[in-house]
Amino acid sequence: VEASVFERFLGSAESLQAFGAQAFVQAMLDFEAALAQAQAAEGLIGAEAARAIAAACHVEQFDLPALLEASGRAGSLAIPLVQQLKAQLGAHAAQAHFGATSQDAIDSALVLCTGRVLALVERDLASLVDALIALNARHGAAPVLARTLMQPAAVTSFGFKLLQWTEPLWRLQGKLRDTAREALQPQLGGAVGTLAAMGDRGPAVARRVAALLQLSEPQGSWHTQRDRLLRLGLEGALLAGALGKMARDWSLMGQGEIAELAEPSEPGRGGSTAMPHKRNPVASMHALAAAQRVPPRAAALLQAMGQEHERGLGNWQAELAEWAGLWTSLHGGLRPMAEAARGLQVDEQRMRSNIDALHAQTGAFDLATAQAARARAEEGWRRIEQQRTQWLNHV
Amino acid sequence: VEASVFERFLGSAESLQAFGAQAFVQAMLDFEAALAQAQAAEGLIGAEAARAIAAACHVEQFDLPALLEASGRAGSLAIPLVQQLKAQLGAHAAQAHFGATSQDAIDSALVLCTGRVLALVERDLASLVDALIALNARHGAAPVLARTLMQPAAVTSFGFKLLQWTEPLWRLQGKLRDTAREALQPQLGGAVGTLAAMGDRGPAVARRVAALLQLSEPQGSWHTQRDRLLRLGLEGALLAGALGKMARDWSLMGQGEIAELAEPSEPGRGGSTAMPHKRNPVASMHALAAAQRVPPRAAALLQAMGQEHERGLGNWQAELAEWAGLWTSLHGGLRPMAEAARGLQVDEQRMRSNIDALHAQTGAFDLATAQAARARAEEGWRRIEQQRTQWLNHV
Amino acid sequence: VEASVFERFLGSAESLQAFGAQAFVQAMLDFEAALAQAQAAEGLIGAEAARAIAAACHVEQFDLPALLEASGRAGSLAIPLVQQLKAQLGAHAAQAHFGATSQDAIDSALVLCTGRVLALVERDLASLVDALIALNARHGAAPVLARTLMQPAAVTSFGFKLLQWTEPLWRLQGKLRDTAREALQPQLGGAVGTLAAMGDRGPAVARRVAALLQLSEPQGSWHTQRDRLLRLGLEGALLAGALGKMARDWSLMGQGEIAELAEPSEPGRGGSTAMPHKRNPVASMHALAAAQRVPPRAAALLQAMGQEHERGLGNWQAELAEWAGLWTSLHGGLRPMAEAARGLQVDEQRMRSNIDALHAQTGAFDLATAQAARARAEEGWRRIEQQRTQWLNHV
Amino acid sequence: VEASVFERFLGSAESLQAFGAQAFVQAMLDFEAALAQAQAAEGLIGAEAARAIAAACHVEQFDLPALLEASGRAGSLAIPLVQQLKAQLGAHAAQAHFGATSQDAIDSALVLCTGRVLALVERDLASLVDALIALNARHGAAPVLARTLMQPAAVTSFGFKLLQWTEPLWRLQGKLRDTAREALQPQLGGAVGTLAAMGDRGPAVARRVAALLQLSEPQGSWHTQRDRLLRLGLEGALLAGALGKMARDWSLMGQGEIAELAEPSEPGRGGSTAMPHKRNPVASMHALAAAQRVPPRAAALLQAMGQEHERGLGNWQAELAEWAGLWTSLHGGLRPMAEAARGLQVDEQRMRSNIDALHAQTGAFDLATAQAARARAEEGWRRIEQQRTQWLNHV
Repeated sequence: VEASVFERFLGSAESLQAFGAQAFVQAMLDFEAALAQAQAAEGLIGAEAARAIAAACHVEQFDLPALLEASGRAGSLAIPLVQQLKAQLGAHAAQAHFGATSQDAIDSALVLCTGRVLALVERDLASLVDALIALNARHGAAPVLARTLMQPAAVTSFGFKLLQWTEPLWRLQGKLRDTAREALQPQLGGAVGTLAAMGDRGPAVARRVAALLQLSEPQGSWHTQRDRLLRLGLEGALLAGALGKMARDWSLMGQGEIAELAEPSEPGRGGSTAMPHKRNPVASMHALAAAQRVPPRAAALLQAMGQEHERGLGNWQAELAEWAGLWTSLHGGLRPMAEAARGLQVDEQRMRSNIDALHAQTGAFDLATAQAARARAEEGWRRIEQQRTQWLNHV
Repeated sequence: VEASVFERFLGSAESLQAFGAQAFVQAMLDFEAALAQAQAAEGLIGAEAARAIAAACHVEQFDLPALLEASGRAGSLAIPLVQQLKAQLGAHAAQAHFGATSQDAIDSALVLCTGRVLALVERDLASLVDALIALNARHGAAPVLARTLMQPAAVTSFGFKLLQWTEPLWRLQGKLRDTAREALQPQLGGAVGTLAAMGDRGPAVARRVAALLQLSEPQGSWHTQRDRLLRLGLEGALLAGALGKMARDWSLMGQGEIAELAEPSEPGRGGSTAMPHKRNPVASMHALAAAQRVPPRAAALLQAMGQEHERGLGNWQAELAEWAGLWTSLHGGLRPMAEAARGLQVDEQRMRSNIDALHAQTGAFDLATAQAARARAEEGWRRIEQQRTQWLNHV
Repeated sequence: VEASVFERFLGSAESLQAFGAQAFVQAMLDFEAALAQAQAAEGLIGAEAARAIAAACHVEQFDLPALLEASGRAGSLAIPLVQQLKAQLGAHAAQAHFGATSQDAIDSALVLCTGRVLALVERDLASLVDALIALNARHGAAPVLARTLMQPAAVTSFGFKLLQWTEPLWRLQGKLRDTAREALQPQLGGAVGTLAAMGDRGPAVARRVAALLQLSEPQGSWHTQRDRLLRLGLEGALLAGALGKMARDWSLMGQGEIAELAEPSEPGRGGSTAMPHKRNPVASMHALAAAQRVPPRAAALLQAMGQEHERGLGNWQAELAEWAGLWTSLHGGLRPMAEAARGLQVDEQRMRSNIDALHAQTGAFDLATAQAARARAEEGWRRIEQQRTQWLNHV
Repeated sequence: VEASVFERFLGSAESLQAFGAQAFVQAMLDFEAALAQAQAAEGLIGAEAARAIAAACHVEQFDLPALLEASGRAGSLAIPLVQQLKAQLGAHAAQAHFGATSQDAIDSALVLCTGRVLALVERDLASLVDALIALNARHGAAPVLARTLMQPAAVTSFGFKLLQWTEPLWRLQGKLRDTAREALQPQLGGAVGTLAAMGDRGPAVARRVAALLQLSEPQGSWHTQRDRLLRLGLEGALLAGALGKMARDWSLMGQGEIAELAEPSEPGRGGSTAMPHKRNPVASMHALAAAQRVPPRAAALLQAMGQEHERGLGNWQAELAEWAGLWTSLHGGLRPMAEAARGLQVDEQRMRSNIDALHAQTGAFDLATAQAARARAEEGWRRIEQQRTQWLNHV
């Protein structure tokens, strides 16, 4: 199925692929295979059945278009999947998806695919933070105008501005890791969350499934307890906001009349069909678009919490779609910023001449205040450095 | 590019396709061809160049993956498109996209694709309203419990309930038509909205483009004046809300303990991987999901209005993506409701026995109030009938 | 009850008052008095009772703190109101609120209070449009840089920029009037919308209530049919967006390094506790805050459409609160912009020197394109003038 | 200033008061007094000045209506406050608010007021969790229908349902504490965040201010680094969602035809002006309203992160207002749920007879699955118990 052309334009191909039909169905099948293996280990199904199920769990063996076509009317992606799976299994059919429910397969696949997108986000976020640290090393001492309420305010240092951008990103690196650890559990609850069909083996099966899928150990099913999952999404939303703030500043500092910063320039980047002289801040555009698209998705996730009883009607399903959209939008904003930060052009002279011009006009904008800015900035950069060291020692 | 699997699950294939890369790029090319033809007629470019441009404007002749890949870094879908177009044109290259800007091609294509999705929406909305009118003819007289704040309240008639669902849908049919007429104009403004490159021929070219593309006549460019376009999207959002209200009621009336309504039953529809006895209200699920997904998109559209100067950074681009998402989500909720309404199962006996049971318990719930409900309902259905006749006479 | 200090800071005192307890309870009482009078005219209650009810319907005679305190537990503002009303009426108590329900009184009061806030909005919007027309007369011919994607793009005219700001505002004046006409109906449906207690006199009573309250004639009750009401709110949301776009441009053009525009300067306006040289764009700040606060409220209104059955649980009540918030936020953004527009300082020389400086740097930014901008702008201003004349002839 | 009548109806008086003008201005004054005391201790101002400032910092000595009236045009609540403060101080005027900026006073006051509302939330959340634990002790063993996609699904235990409601609430108790510790820092940055006016004493002053106001130690100013603050708000939003889920279930289980649960009944609670037999689930209504009102506020907070440069125009100010609204809405939904949970009426017999009726119809709904539900529930309740013990040992 084709995405709207704008999802491709604003998203990243990698993250779109991670929630695409191919990857998601394979992730559901990974769950089914792990479930069978775990159930065999706990004596709930036969070892041969488990092997047959694992052998069948490859997306290439499934009719994906038919599965997607059927899912709408079925009301679930898992129903036609399990049908196709069982059709391959002959005598072992009854052992597949044993004691599980649609939501188990879908939520577990969601968690697996999320883990992959998160790896992309973490990679690009780390690279962005590195680039900002490098910019501070090169340009941190430069005095630059601070501006409040869209008016020149006083002289600060570029290192202090860099710190304002970097600290939230740095904190978010840690928070994404921590919340992911709680969020990325497999889902296994059976029909109504109680694992009734697995007798007293249910929790043990769930632990084995987690280990097989390299996910965190589940503390019971979470069909309608979405707080841990959503907390991870909300960290993603904070990241979109932090990126948007930096992109807003870049775009303001890059205005023709101010020209203190420019995104890197190269063929095929930021041109105009009508104005050959233009160089548009394309990475900022992507991050600002993400910062507009992610908050409504966060609201949708929160609104979807009102699931009725043991599985909601419409809200859970909406959550799944908004979840994928949040992460693909976010990564679509993050990746170009990481790339642009590595080549960001900083014009220290222009920073200085902009101060001088306003000083000449008003008498205000004393360069001496850059001193305090540098001191505060250094304190901040030291905090990051210390935490980074701590973190590396912990790993 | 693949959409997230959930967009396919919750959306409709038809509407997704309408904003897919293939359809959208063809629509941009339709704009470029119409522009050339209009400019030739106004003497701005040669007739031969216009013919060459028109001959080149077929999506099959373009390298779509390369175009999409380049668009992200270019910051626009139109930049690589125009490059590929010019590359085909040899000596006529300078005549292509003459005096236009990226946003002209993209907004015009958006409007063309929106027109196609709107036709789907109008088709299914009309069919849904027809089905509800038919249900009223069959079951309108049946007494049924009215419920307020989730508690039984008094006896009404099913025709009155049907009217509550139908009137907003009926009004929205008219509003969608009326707002579409204002919204679906081509975009033509050139670099900064003033058509400067076309001398005094600009407005005449714009009128010809509109006629060629069968769109409404433009009243100047609207690069940053998005109110008319957004008004159409907000009518779509009201439609999602009206559908969600009806789906909420269907799902409540279809609960096992109440059982007054059921969505049609058939193989492959509304089953469960874990519970063979279940029949889930799948159409309601789709409509409720849409009713959760559309309002945040409406908010995103409104928030995107704050475009800077003559073309915004990030906000315009976010609007495009949210716009497509709004319509595909909406149609994903509407189509199954139209289909389900045609086969909706109404259990008049159960409606009656639910009343009787509560009457026996409480003494309240007098059947006599169904009389007033029928009278009010008939007034309402007559209003619809009259407007419908008026409308048909107008067309 | 005190509002949060920020509602006062960002809202307007007038609009807050319009939805305050005093005004709202009086509006509910106006409904009750009109209902009694209408029912007396239709012979449903005695004339003497109607007079007694009307005499009692003054907010000063009610214990407002007790009413508000009781409302939370009662689950409705109308329940304690009707109790206090009946307590005043002795033998006529049974005639008060006859055949009506809580929602009738509350929705009707909402509509009455909305009408008053809308009058404030219309007053200030008209004044803003007038100020922009006057600015065009004085400064419309001035060449100024057009900027796209936050980069200088080409030369336009200030009249063209003014037109971009004004046209949506002008259209919204008309749309607010038109949608208000449909939206501002009294609510009268009785317990479950069917007016059952009033026999065949219900619709006639409703028409009389509308006439007495100077509201539009109702087409049946609309307890759960909120599309007409919400359409008015969505026009308000579009207005917040159009204001935000203009405020964004003002704040960008007013940056110290650009200085083409300034909000009026005067004591007590736009200062800083830390920086005496500053002059902050305070009106823009209010409008930008409104443009951020209104879209989520629009989403909340849309989300609240999913009322269950004949009166929703939580959603209808949330709608009421978000509705009031939307209008007070909007007016808080509009009023200062209308005031600031009257004194907006336009620096034509700076507009020119900003062009010259970039022209010197790049060779681009030809002043000749200002010509086309003036022509397009004049066409637009003529459209407004023509519609305005048409409108005045219609009234 | 009066709040809209609906804020009072849906909010709690306590939480509204916490962000009201009186409390908020006093909190700003508490900041100013602490700042003076800290600066005196660090030798930046004289001890006598500090005493004079502290003596002046009582809201009763300020002209609140004048302050509020002036704030709108000033563009800040702090500007008129500091003016009134200085006017009281004579020779010490220059020592007041020394080196600080408006945002320092306002953000610090926000944090102080948030701490107070958070105490209310924590109190009522703890009481709600206690009530649910007590309900489990009394009714946890009762078999009850589990329902998925709004259809009966299988038999579970009421203890398992209670656990689904309780676990997220329990986790949120911890998360609110943890995020508050990071969020509730004073703000102190001076004009542009660098504490330039305080030389090298800035950070020491900030630490003293934190200690005096019993807030967490600040790690630099956070004028535009809002992630830590917002993270606390997002936990509040998760809480609103978790409450809404429980309220949704209560309202569904309390339907007349199902009648498994009822909110406590008492005079003045949940009646109807039109239907004397009704008992409306008023606490659920409040929680459902909050669950609709909070997510859009969370989105607004996230969208407001895009502050320009060192202090944003409109976005920071919008954040303040949405922040207060989030907490008052949340507490308005939480308090009645805590109260209702203590008296929740559980009808075990009806739970059983609803199962039996469906079993008779379909043959499905085996009571035996309640066994597994009880086992899973007990595991969950033990997890809560263990964490609780751990937590108590930690304190």
